[in-house]
Amino acid sequence: MASTSSSSNTTGLAPDSTTRRRIARKASSGWAAKNDDSESSSKGYRHVAAVHSSTQPSCLSADATSIPSFVGFRNLMAISLVAANFRLMIENIEKYGVLICVRCHDFRQQDVLLGLALYFLIPCHLFLACLIESVAASQATGLRKGVKGGKGGEEAPSREQSAKFRRTWITVAWLHSVNVVATLAYTSYVVYYHIHHPLIGTATELHAIIVLLKTYSYALTNRDLRHAYLHPNTGALDSIPDLYAACPYPRNVTMSNIIYFWWAPTLIYQPVYPRTPRIRWVFVAKRVAEAFFLAVFIWFIAAQYATPLLQNSLIKIHTLEYTAILERLLKLSTISLVIWLAGFFAFFQSTLNALAEITRFGDRSFYDDWWNSENLGVYWRTWNKPVYKYFKRHVFTPLLARGWSPMLASTMVFFLSAVLHEILVGVPTHNIIGVAFLGMFLQLPLIKLTMPLGKSKTAASKLVGNTIFWVSFTIFGQPFAALMYFYAWQV
Amino acid sequence: MASTSSSSNTTGLAPDSTTRRRIARKASSGWAAKNDDSESSSKGYRHVAAVHSSTQPSCLSADATSIPSFVGFRNLMAISLVAANFRLMIENIEKYGVLICVRCHDFRQQDVLLGLALYFLIPCHLFLACLIESVAASQATGLRKGVKGGKGGEEAPSREQSAKFRRTWITVAWLHSVNVVATLAYTSYVVYYHIHHPLIGTATELHAIIVLLKTYSYALTNRDLRHAYLHPNTGALDSIPDLYAACPYPRNVTMSNIIYFWWAPTLIYQPVYPRTPRIRWVFVAKRVAEAFFLAVFIWFIAAQYATPLLQNSLIKIHTLEYTAILERLLKLSTISLVIWLAGFFAFFQSTLNALAEITRFGDRSFYDDWWNSENLGVYWRTWNKPVYKYFKRHVFTPLLARGWSPMLASTMVFFLSAVLHEILVGVPTHNIIGVAFLGMFLQLPLIKLTMPLGKSKTAASKLVGNTIFWVSFTIFGQPFAALMYFYAWQV
Repeated sequence: MASTSSSSNTTGLAPDSTTRRRIARKASSGWAAKNDDSESSSKGYRHVAAVHSSTQPSCLSADATSIPSFVGFRNLMAISLVAANFRLMIENIEKYGVLICVRCHDFRQQDVLLGLALYFLIPCHLFLACLIESVAASQATGLRKGVKGGKGGEEAPSREQSAKFRRTWITVAWLHSVNVVATLAYTSYVVYYHIHHPLIGTATELHAIIVLLKTYSYALTNRDLRHAYLHPNTGALDSIPDLYAACPYPRNVTMSNIIYFWWAPTLIYQPVYPRTPRIRWVFVAKRVAEAFFLAVFIWFIAAQYATPLLQNSLIKIHTLEYTAILERLLKLSTISLVIWLAGFFAFFQSTLNALAEITRFGDRSFYDDWWNSENLGVYWRTWNKPVYKYFKRHVFTPLLARGWSPMLASTMVFFLSAVLHEILVGVPTHNIIGVAFLGMFLQLPLIKLTMPLGKSKTAASKLVGNTIFWVSFTIFGQPFAALMYFYAWQV
Repeated sequence: MASTSSSSNTTGLAPDSTTRRRIARKASSGWAAKNDDSESSSKGYRHVAAVHSSTQPSCLSADATSIPSFVGFRNLMAISLVAANFRLMIENIEKYGVLICVRCHDFRQQDVLLGLALYFLIPCHLFLACLIESVAASQATGLRKGVKGGKGGEEAPSREQSAKFRRTWITVAWLHSVNVVATLAYTSYVVYYHIHHPLIGTATELHAIIVLLKTYSYALTNRDLRHAYLHPNTGALDSIPDLYAACPYPRNVTMSNIIYFWWAPTLIYQPVYPRTPRIRWVFVAKRVAEAFFLAVFIWFIAAQYATPLLQNSLIKIHTLEYTAILERLLKLSTISLVIWLAGFFAFFQSTLNALAEITRFGDRSFYDDWWNSENLGVYWRTWNKPVYKYFKRHVFTPLLARGWSPMLASTMVFFLSAVLHEILVGVPTHNIIGVAFLGMFLQLPLIKLTMPLGKSKTAASKLVGNTIFWVSFTIFGQPFAALMYFYAWQV
């Protein structure tokens, strides 16, 4: 027995049990680390092992018992994107060299001076609004005293006093309107005719629009506060949010209150906001650093990649080569997408959070997870919450209360938004060509069209909805508009 | 009270509860479908609603209570890849036009005739192997009868008989070796010197290597079966897998048995395989259709995208412009990746499953989820299981049994694999330059390097491991080797 065993060992055929254990132990390390059942079934006769011992389908076949994970392909997608864009970067540097130039920016002196002047002039209109409200508030205080003194503290205001409130509101409304429309009008005039550089123009125009929206909110909120103040017996005072109790009307109509509103990262006026207990300066520093590096990144991408691309697509647009325009559009889409994402993060996450931390502004829900949007409606409600909340509070809900249908009220919201977009983009590029207006206004039928996609909650319909969202918005929407305005600006 | 209420309704300030309910109902449809708490807190005073009513962080901030889903960005990646490659397709068609040409393939007549001759000649060597085994089997039958007849049925074979078995095995081993080495040698000679087209050459060479591997498996398995047959009293017969009981040695050494092995989608010889009950012809038709369309797809991609790319990178290699070579390599990587994935699916899923269905071969585990590999070791064990199982059964485990260390046995496996790869790639391209050999042999240190990545089971280490796998293999490994051989072949 012993001799047979030793002889088989030399030919390597039937090792004894010790050898077998050793093999099994070794086989579990090294190259063939996976120990499948073929090992045990071979029982030492390695070349006869029943490697094919059971019937089983391939893991990608339809009759497979479990679907394998595909997380590796997600990683492959990310790697392919990095590789593809790295390749385009090499191609770009071989073709154009380094296009970044810190010193050769052609900001005209006139542009800078006018921009600065407007930068300090625009906020003054906020203070004017405060002045108008102070006058209205002091009149209301007198009126309320009159009500209390004349006919006893518990009585409702007379018909005459209600009429007086309305007359005052009409005057105040006119004054506010003249104030804010004047701001936007002279800013737009100066930007359109005298500021050449679109960057300074856009910043100035954006500033004017923000002040316009803030002023309207300030005026409308104070109107309602004043109404509640003058009609204390109709239960109106109870319906004022509890949060405002810390600063009741007319104590909120002060210079310090409006200065806080001026800097707070919101478009909506509230006498009182939820506040954080203290400023975390490390948090502020991190957000400012983020914003700075993203701004540099965007400037780099724009100068090195977007500019040559936009320039060499001008000829294609001029000669209307449609395939070539589509090709340029697709190439532009990657760059505009990167700029868009970086810009979104830099503004809505970094800048607004830094500003909120400095002003101890509590509600930092500036955006939701819009990247998962299943239809365009979700996107417009989540990507820019300051503006969404503004239009909902001051346009959409009041119009519904006046008996408008939701569709009509939505149309109004998108009409106003479209006008503001056209002003914001068309005025600084000196081309009011209506692309921004249409791009915004056409969102409404698109929302209607994609509405059913969010409703059915299956994974497939969510995927389809999200894909349509990304394609319509990022691949076609943005770069197409950018190309149009660049073309118009250059011509 | 009624008059106040109606007067406030005309100015749109404090609607009664009915109006308020109507607003709430309306607001839940249309544009602003999301009903947040600002609605209820406003209590009809819409412009004073406390929109900012609580302190909350932005959802991307580090102090956010829950991390939002990022599934939208996964979709965006997929869309970007499609868009980027669609753009490259437009660019390609603008630059080169349609390069697909069905009629203009330059298969030389000599290539086709030689290829066909070899196609019918190579399998004959399998039948020769069967003939050799028949002689050995009949000798073994005689020997066993001698054992049983001479010294009684229950006794162990004598020392002399064991020696005779070994002598027979040495003769049989020599005959088999001469048989298979001759196959590979004359095939390689003809392909290297007389077949110009690399496609016909590779197919022929692959055929020869498959027959070589199958013959070795056939010889080694029958050696062990014969040993067990001749040593029935050492318990060897019991250690033969139960599956083989349906066809015990020497009944398996028949022409029909080896013809089944010839067509079965495996490299490993077993007298008996797990079989499926019947052929599903619809399944076969689907798999064949898949394989056909994928083959056409690969041919299209190769002709339209890979060929011009390979051709215009030749100059860059010649002048050794490293940045330009890297750029070409990255561009090639996408195409080679697509071809690789399509080829993998066409061969391992479609072709092998079709073949398995026709031969009623049960074990269709031709691959596992290699795309999720956390290190290169996992990849080499899962992407090509027929070859993995072959080397594990016939090289790795037997070497361990002979006392080799797992490292040394693994080195041997990769050395053999590297030699076969070099033959498979180098001979048809007429350039034995060693890139395929090195590419394969260098896998071993790479596996060693990436081994720790699979061990720690955190998501981050898995991600890093999977990324390194994809980058090393698909982005650099494949296109680099393809470029090298194309360059060598052209020169």
